[in-house]
Amino acid sequence: MPALTDRDLTIVAPSLPPGLDTPAVVVDLDRVEANLAGMQRRLDERGVALRPHTKTHKSVRFAALQRDAGAVGLTVAVLSEAQLFADAGFDDVFVAYPVWAGGPKAARLRGLHERIRLTVGVDSVEGAVALGRALEGADRPLRVLVEIDSGELRTGVAPDGALPVAQAAADAGLDVAGVFTHGGHSYRGPQRVADAAADETDTLHRSVAALRGAGFAVDTVSAGSTPTALRSATGPVTEERPGTYIFGDRQQTNLGGADPASIALAVATTVVSTASGARQCVIDAGAKSLAKDRPGWLDGHGVIPGLPGAVITSVYDHHGIVALPDGVPVPDVGEQFAVVPNHVCPVVNLSDDLIITRDGGQVDVWPVDGRGLRA
Amino acid sequence: MPALTDRDLTIVAPSLPPGLDTPAVVVDLDRVEANLAGMQRRLDERGVALRPHTKTHKSVRFAALQRDAGAVGLTVAVLSEAQLFADAGFDDVFVAYPVWAGGPKAARLRGLHERIRLTVGVDSVEGAVALGRALEGADRPLRVLVEIDSGELRTGVAPDGALPVAQAAADAGLDVAGVFTHGGHSYRGPQRVADAAADETDTLHRSVAALRGAGFAVDTVSAGSTPTALRSATGPVTEERPGTYIFGDRQQTNLGGADPASIALAVATTVVSTASGARQCVIDAGAKSLAKDRPGWLDGHGVIPGLPGAVITSVYDHHGIVALPDGVPVPDVGEQFAVVPNHVCPVVNLSDDLIITRDGGQVDVWPVDGRGLRA
Repeated sequence: MPALTDRDLTIVAPSLPPGLDTPAVVVDLDRVEANLAGMQRRLDERGVALRPHTKTHKSVRFAALQRDAGAVGLTVAVLSEAQLFADAGFDDVFVAYPVWAGGPKAARLRGLHERIRLTVGVDSVEGAVALGRALEGADRPLRVLVEIDSGELRTGVAPDGALPVAQAAADAGLDVAGVFTHGGHSYRGPQRVADAAADETDTLHRSVAALRGAGFAVDTVSAGSTPTALRSATGPVTEERPGTYIFGDRQQTNLGGADPASIALAVATTVVSTASGARQCVIDAGAKSLAKDRPGWLDGHGVIPGLPGAVITSVYDHHGIVALPDGVPVPDVGEQFAVVPNHVCPVVNLSDDLIITRDGGQVDVWPVDGRGLRA
Repeated sequence: MPALTDRDLTIVAPSLPPGLDTPAVVVDLDRVEANLAGMQRRLDERGVALRPHTKTHKSVRFAALQRDAGAVGLTVAVLSEAQLFADAGFDDVFVAYPVWAGGPKAARLRGLHERIRLTVGVDSVEGAVALGRALEGADRPLRVLVEIDSGELRTGVAPDGALPVAQAAADAGLDVAGVFTHGGHSYRGPQRVADAAADETDTLHRSVAALRGAGFAVDTVSAGSTPTALRSATGPVTEERPGTYIFGDRQQTNLGGADPASIALAVATTVVSTASGARQCVIDAGAKSLAKDRPGWLDGHGVIPGLPGAVITSVYDHHGIVALPDGVPVPDVGEQFAVVPNHVCPVVNLSDDLIITRDGGQVDVWPVDGRGLRA
């Protein structure tokens, strides 16, 4: 049967309050505060600013905790998230995405720019031109960072492509404030993390040199990803944009980006069936709770510390199939377990609210204010 | 590079209204109406009732269209969906799931039972006992259907396990109205569909025989799944519970459960980057729009009929990577395309609302009333 990693087996899930109506998402606020303080302290020691990516929590209250812990501003993926946080009083937001402003987003972008210190990503001449048109006549230029590809092969230009985009952006009346990258190839496996961090600093260094050589001031050099955040916080880098570090998840634990005892979020689930007769049980957390993110280097759809070695072999919309190893008794229908998800971001995005706990007891329920925002 | 199937290449996406703010989900109402009428007519011809599974659309207005077309009632996966439709005036709802009523769901179940003709699934003695306790003192017994496993190995008992569960349910004061199954192994590939449909009728036939032999009346024999619905609507079966047939999707098209020209839902997306230099483009529909459902027998995360042969090789939260075959030019940043998703149910569940079109023009926006409901 499929197996968990050695690292999986060390994960300690948050405690579940008794009697939950499942599936439900539980957050250990003590662990959240420790995670936020830990990342902030370690980046402070390096003299690098923290601009956390809020797509992990999509919640005003968690963003406020990050600000209170010392974050210089927020990172978001989409304009609607920037609008959410602007409405909540956050005045410095970076949209780490090559925003296409040629359509209906032009007016939304303009409106946001007039309210807060907005920065957006750009990785093409056409994108820069569209941003410039959207901001024509504004009282001050829009800040942009040129996105650099550090090896993920997703968005972003190669370092030697930074200058043409920066020049197009300047010609379009934009304020080219620097560059950013996301070493997302760190997620391809634990053996890739160190190289991805080195790629981030190397490609940023080369891009900054090209832009400074052409006369651009470059005040911001931004790197990203939770696994690489502490490794790439060096050299030219002025800020880091980790997101997942607030909660941690199974993937981060295996990548070395989260301590196994620091995981602050779990999905509470109930066993609903053991009828198949196989050494398995069925839980009420399926793809609509756990999502389907599963990197090829991990077996199963999450970890259940209360059933050591059990593998969630498949998830349907409302069912999770849990294969049980020899020696683990088949649980009773009605038993509850905490599942630590593979990837926490889509799990939060599927949830209207989060059950907040301290010392294993429920203390509050917080809304996921930005749940579903994507445009 | 990865390839699409011959069947994928025949898919005709709904037309997109111009100037959409993407990502957005577009529904062709003309096609929806044709899909609803077609399934209803073919089941009417077989003398089998249609009780559509609403987890596909989670929307009151689509459920009303199904009722108007002739559906006898609704199927849902969870109690909160049943509550949604009860609130909207639907008075006959089947929760096709082994509901665990031992915890906070007991009071919710009781409240629903007092308002509508509610039926729930059961596949264990313990589950039956908990349902009975939840309904103690009710003015009439709760209707239950015993879930039979027809080969999916998920929930449900083997046919020879139906009688002990039915007897426990009767002993607990429940009204054992019949049996149900879901031939979900039809989704394991096109070559499995015919056998899965035959398994549904065979296992239901054996279960019904066992229950009738012990004196149970059995008024309802319910089979499920869109690919098998028309094949298993025979023999002992009194009702079918397809869900996906309302919109269709790429998976259904490849399983023979949807005509390639009948697909009624697409995700509208914009090209945001072509900066990598590879023969690819990046679209703004990622896993938070398309979900990550991908059966092992299909390449990629959806089909883009406007880019024939292109494969969505990976999806991140807000990015989709589209590999382009030789001969298809790299599109411009800012171009919009319709993506037909692999599996439509999680796509709708990620959406707050749906853009409704007729003849390619937007006519309305409908809310996904039950988006996110899962408990």
